[in-house]
Amino acid sequence: MTRPTLSRCPRPATVTVSAQDEHGHVRAVEIADEHPLTLYLDRREVVTLMTLGAAPEELALGYLRNQRLLGSVSEVAAIQVDWSVSAVAVTSRSLADRGVPLWSDEAAATSLARRTVTSGCGQGTLFGDLLESLAPPALPAEARLSEATLMRVLDEARRHDSIYKQAGAVHGCALCTNTPGEAGRILRYVEDVGRHNAVDAIAGWMWLEDIAGTDKIFYTTGRLTSEMVIKCAQIGVPFLVSRSGLTRMGHTLAEDLGLTLIGRCQGRHYLLFTGAQRFDRLEPAAPA
Amino acid sequence: MTRPTLSRCPRPATVTVSAQDEHGHVRAVEIADEHPLTLYLDRREVVTLMTLGAAPEELALGYLRNQRLLGSVSEVAAIQVDWSVSAVAVTSRSLADRGVPLWSDEAAATSLARRTVTSGCGQGTLFGDLLESLAPPALPAEARLSEATLMRVLDEARRHDSIYKQAGAVHGCALCTNTPGEAGRILRYVEDVGRHNAVDAIAGWMWLEDIAGTDKIFYTTGRLTSEMVIKCAQIGVPFLVSRSGLTRMGHTLAEDLGLTLIGRCQGRHYLLFTGAQRFDRLEPAAPA
Repeated sequence: MTRPTLSRCPRPATVTVSAQDEHGHVRAVEIADEHPLTLYLDRREVVTLMTLGAAPEELALGYLRNQRLLGSVSEVAAIQVDWSVSAVAVTSRSLADRGVPLWSDEAAATSLARRTVTSGCGQGTLFGDLLESLAPPALPAEARLSEATLMRVLDEARRHDSIYKQAGAVHGCALCTNTPGEAGRILRYVEDVGRHNAVDAIAGWMWLEDIAGTDKIFYTTGRLTSEMVIKCAQIGVPFLVSRSGLTRMGHTLAEDLGLTLIGRCQGRHYLLFTGAQRFDRLEPAAPA
Repeated sequence: MTRPTLSRCPRPATVTVSAQDEHGHVRAVEIADEHPLTLYLDRREVVTLMTLGAAPEELALGYLRNQRLLGSVSEVAAIQVDWSVSAVAVTSRSLADRGVPLWSDEAAATSLARRTVTSGCGQGTLFGDLLESLAPPALPAEARLSEATLMRVLDEARRHDSIYKQAGAVHGCALCTNTPGEAGRILRYVEDVGRHNAVDAIAGWMWLEDIAGTDKIFYTTGRLTSEMVIKCAQIGVPFLVSRSGLTRMGHTLAEDLGLTLIGRCQGRHYLLFTGAQRFDRLEPAAPA
């Protein structure tokens, strides 16, 4: 596989503003920065994302992947971010090699109309035949997660040096390995003002690094909504873990997709909502 | 003012699912329910919202208000929710009284194209000339908030019997009075799976009850993003309070709009980010 040419243009994650605390003292406080970033595919405008800007190239690629606007990273020749015009330009191999844009006008209209804005923000949602139209790959039936690995994921996430600790107001997502010997280790941690963006950036990174999802665990600080479950299934990860709660649609989708959903993780506590057949507790259940 | 005819169709907020805890015990756990609700104005489809369904009539009205698709509640004859078809039908007085839909085909196309999906979810955002196009009413320069009132708002919000405590995965918004004698009391508390929905439902309730925003305080459990700041300004409330953090765009917009923004409220701690001239501390600042 030929890797796309990439710019490397992360933005600083925070800006400093002054605020008065409860003692009346003026303090310098770090807050999460937020930038509009308009995504173009072969010069055609696709969407404007509001992002922290930590991983804009991966975000652009992952957005195109998770919206099924691209079928494979091999279709991409270059991803170039230019913050001076708040834009990221994705160039297809088709355009780069043969001068033919990936999309005809008709294909573009169809593809862009097909985009889904799933819940989480709760507005502008198209849910109808979402699951069917997304057709995520089947999750591996044999994948297993041990309680010890779950605890390591949670410990690593807690210890991770995060923008959230510094400035709040962001969501974090982590991709962790489930390979024996290093199971639970964080491979990639992305934070963004929207959790859709954080998971998309991880999806883009996985494509760039040619990393499969089947032997991984996905961790998020955010709620387990339908769109988190769908995106997790789309990148082929069978385990979705969060310290937050879940909504009914997230629960229903996880059941339908056969995904193992673990929520409300706090300290040693957790709740295993779906896919229990893949989970190995340390000890047999104590009598209730 | 003639009040619109309203259905009263709240949905139960939670459903019970079973989950295994860390001891291997199977427990009945409440999770937030989530329903698609398609909004029609004079039989024209406007949007599909994903909602907890606690206040669907107010949500529909508030969505139309905050998206500036309606200029006044007096334009509305009826709001009818029918969960069997996942729909809420808003009928204008124009249609009800004279048989003429509020929108011509052209007006509908213009109005619907003008809709904004602001940040928070971080995707699908149109920010460009948002502030200019929204043109929120000027906030009252003379409004003041005392530290004692702020503490009462925070105490009331903490004590409020909430779906969040039961099931998590929802955002809460509260409208509180700032009238001397009862300042800080919660007038209306709405929770939803998306915080956009919770603030929209409060905006709808304010229209129905003919309640002004100038002598109120808005509390949210969610982050202070640009869209929270804009919606708060649109309903004319000068004070926006959250236990969460804020993003740079939320901060910038609050400064531009002259809104008083107080975040990271925890116990007796808080940070006053903008609009400090409206805030009265209990005691003068201690030496730093």
